[in-house]
Amino acid sequence: MSSAPGTLTRRALLAGVGAAGGAGAMFAAMGALGLAPDSQDRAFTPPQRSDFSLTGRGAAKVVVLGAGIAGLTCAYELGKAGYDCTVLEAADRVGGRNLTVRGGDRLTEFGGETQTAEFGPDVYFNAGPGRIAQWMVTMDYCRELGVPLEVFVNGNASAYVRTHAMDAPVRVRTARADMYGYIAELLAKAADAGALDRRLTGEDRERLTEFLRRFGDLGPDLSYRGSPRRGFTVYPGYGSGEPLAGPPPLGEVLAAGTGRALTADFGFEQAMPMFQPVGGMDAIVRALVREVGEERILTGAPVTGVRNLPDGVEVTYSGGPGGSGGAVRADYCVATLPPHLLARVPHNLGARVTAALRTPTPVAAGKLGLEYGRRWWETEDRIYGGITETDLDITHIWYPSHGYHGRTGLLVGYYNTGAEAELYGSLPHHERRARALTQGKKIHGEKYRAELRSSVSVAWHRRPHVEGGWAVWPSYGGAFTVLQQPAGRVHFAGDWLTHLVAWQAGAMESARKAVTALHQRVLAVS
Amino acid sequence: MSSAPGTLTRRALLAGVGAAGGAGAMFAAMGALGLAPDSQDRAFTPPQRSDFSLTGRGAAKVVVLGAGIAGLTCAYELGKAGYDCTVLEAADRVGGRNLTVRGGDRLTEFGGETQTAEFGPDVYFNAGPGRIAQWMVTMDYCRELGVPLEVFVNGNASAYVRTHAMDAPVRVRTARADMYGYIAELLAKAADAGALDRRLTGEDRERLTEFLRRFGDLGPDLSYRGSPRRGFTVYPGYGSGEPLAGPPPLGEVLAAGTGRALTADFGFEQAMPMFQPVGGMDAIVRALVREVGEERILTGAPVTGVRNLPDGVEVTYSGGPGGSGGAVRADYCVATLPPHLLARVPHNLGARVTAALRTPTPVAAGKLGLEYGRRWWETEDRIYGGITETDLDITHIWYPSHGYHGRTGLLVGYYNTGAEAELYGSLPHHERRARALTQGKKIHGEKYRAELRSSVSVAWHRRPHVEGGWAVWPSYGGAFTVLQQPAGRVHFAGDWLTHLVAWQAGAMESARKAVTALHQRVLAVS
Repeated sequence: MSSAPGTLTRRALLAGVGAAGGAGAMFAAMGALGLAPDSQDRAFTPPQRSDFSLTGRGAAKVVVLGAGIAGLTCAYELGKAGYDCTVLEAADRVGGRNLTVRGGDRLTEFGGETQTAEFGPDVYFNAGPGRIAQWMVTMDYCRELGVPLEVFVNGNASAYVRTHAMDAPVRVRTARADMYGYIAELLAKAADAGALDRRLTGEDRERLTEFLRRFGDLGPDLSYRGSPRRGFTVYPGYGSGEPLAGPPPLGEVLAAGTGRALTADFGFEQAMPMFQPVGGMDAIVRALVREVGEERILTGAPVTGVRNLPDGVEVTYSGGPGGSGGAVRADYCVATLPPHLLARVPHNLGARVTAALRTPTPVAAGKLGLEYGRRWWETEDRIYGGITETDLDITHIWYPSHGYHGRTGLLVGYYNTGAEAELYGSLPHHERRARALTQGKKIHGEKYRAELRSSVSVAWHRRPHVEGGWAVWPSYGGAFTVLQQPAGRVHFAGDWLTHLVAWQAGAMESARKAVTALHQRVLAVS
Repeated sequence: MSSAPGTLTRRALLAGVGAAGGAGAMFAAMGALGLAPDSQDRAFTPPQRSDFSLTGRGAAKVVVLGAGIAGLTCAYELGKAGYDCTVLEAADRVGGRNLTVRGGDRLTEFGGETQTAEFGPDVYFNAGPGRIAQWMVTMDYCRELGVPLEVFVNGNASAYVRTHAMDAPVRVRTARADMYGYIAELLAKAADAGALDRRLTGEDRERLTEFLRRFGDLGPDLSYRGSPRRGFTVYPGYGSGEPLAGPPPLGEVLAAGTGRALTADFGFEQAMPMFQPVGGMDAIVRALVREVGEERILTGAPVTGVRNLPDGVEVTYSGGPGGSGGAVRADYCVATLPPHLLARVPHNLGARVTAALRTPTPVAAGKLGLEYGRRWWETEDRIYGGITETDLDITHIWYPSHGYHGRTGLLVGYYNTGAEAELYGSLPHHERRARALTQGKKIHGEKYRAELRSSVSVAWHRRPHVEGGWAVWPSYGGAFTVLQQPAGRVHFAGDWLTHLVAWQAGAMESARKAVTALHQRVLAVS
């Protein structure tokens, strides 16, 4: 038996196992919780016009900095109660990192050339967020706003795994069957040999063995010798099919390093199924803009100053409709810019706020969209959506979760972060593309390069008015909590101010909190 | 270590592990295969008009028995070369077991009342086949016929598991995290304690442990103490979230009996993602009928006799357009009726054919569609598609994989086979419904019963002209191979004549084989 640290605790926890019989109190408690709806935070009640009806006082004027998901959600929720919102957006488009690129769209990075997307009419590229988990509040906004959803295939048994340790890619179903088969065999045989007798009652062992037989598709002798789960060269049909060669010996399966790929969808944010708006992620942006009112949003208007005044706030900006900048006076402000950009805007919110804004670190992130004139991944590789996981510098290849069997389609040729995103981001677009094609060829062969029709890449850390894929906190400590509070009349919001950094749901949750706090202040003053 | 039978074989297999180093020849071979397209059988070449151009002879006349997927596929493929096909269908509708029920549709079973579906306008119920695997030829037919596809969610981490051993349901993500966590802990600690040293090199052990840490989300001491993968009562957002209580002790997790649910999508026919036609499975039938030509299909025309003649075949039928039956003379026949029904039709094909047709056993299968006026499983349970697995007599609950966030929706309240299907099938519809609601309440509470709007059930074994969910062979031996050959001018086809029984892909593969054999005969005669 194990003598690893923590064994005593474990033993103490397991002490009651034998006596428990069937599924006991703990499962019952879990089940009861399971019956209760889970959610991010159901406590939110949107402000509404009737909140003001007894006081006779109207809603306040609010200036929102940034027309990303956080800013638009703030303006949308405040608008429900009649708040007079103005949204200032530095870029010449709304949406922030919610960016769906279509044919004709132009992208410019710091020090980079301008790319113009040459995609065909039905092709789009979600260059920013691409997927939504079922429990996320993003689902609720899609429902409320009438944004139709479809499944985003976040894991596909037919996609590949490709690591440096492999000479060639292997399908996820094959890698999974082999790994599960061998670990089931190892554990079942160890249990059978009595190696776990101090941990398992006789009944436990029987149940464990029954589970492992299923889990690994083991033979009667508890050995793994392959399984139809691995896949076939010719699948059963009129004939019984031709199984794949294999399985490789245990040592080879372990050496292949498929662990990250096989567990990629285990996390609570990544579990299948996930979802995406039909037609592109920016359907959410369009719906929010429709509700907020386009006339309330000033694009091309970078904020140049934020000042708390005794009875309000003043925000100045350059550019804007007239091109010569201006100022917005309001009762309150919600600042949703990325923290590292907001830290650079002159303000009178104090040094503590500046220091807090400088605390999270922006993360490099890059994505490449590759348009092909035919969907060879479907017709030849039989991969309909999903992700090939690699330990190459492209990290993943995403296959499109829409437009199945269409004439054309777009793959995500890389979605990487950190050093790999820095590496690709430092190159001009044509070199990013060339590098990614060389990597993808290791999985899909020459067609991956030869049949490319067009491409677009984005390096989020090099994109003006964003300068990062997202921002991470060294800890959820002081600086984080400083900014979860307003600084005078300036409230802060954004995914960066939540425990859901990099998710639209984070931006929305944060917006809800800021709106609630702001509305309560307004009601208290009334 | 284990002394189970087969250990020597295993040891022999593993003998070379230490020497193998990285991923060796076996993985390379697998990878190379992985690059090759997999398929059911790519050898099929449809008959075409030009096949006859050199001989000056036209295509033959063919009578097809049964307008299910096999029969329609035969007529479709033969039609490509100009064969003159007539399809005889006993029922008053086409499609066979491909049955999508919509509002106003009527269903009658042997000895049962007639049900009329009262579904609202956007609601449908795939009462027969419901899902398609990526590798299946059904995908190719959808592509060729222009039938749009969407994901069928065959597994959902947010759906429930409910077994008799549980007091209340648990979400799949929770059950999975706990089972994986504990088996990872048990195996990692056994390896750490040296219990596997005869099976693992030092390098193997390190790699195994690294995998198990990921797989089980183990702590630094290799213990499983829960994981965010289990889910939350409040998911992270503005705050860090509230984890679920638990995990239960190992003994309770094993006693809960979640093995079938946790491995339900491991099989090669069940792996995610799967697909369904947009708008209902019968989109495939409509597309085939469009191509075949409605005028070639006689419905309400049960076959009463099949005779090989010296120079052709003669098929007689009752009913039909005039109501008084008739006869079709043709050069060839393809018989696609279920084998147990075909066995009853008078014929002159010989006793060996009759015996062979009687060999496979029809299987009882039932499905129940439950229409609700709101999609509470989405808004309250946060389940978007997928399947709750149970060991109750309903076996599963399917949540709809389309119309997300719509006003109404339809669940599959049971999909069961064998004894459980016999049990439900023996009841009148209102009792089937009542029983299934009582079971479903154990998972979803009172709303499951109280909010039901309408329902329809089908017992396939009691459905005229079908009389079974599908038919299974005692072995793929003599009788099976007898019918894979034509009897004179009568060829046989159907899912029952393949290694893909119960799948539309089986019907299509079988049809392709019959068409190829028939066409080769015709060309040889020319």
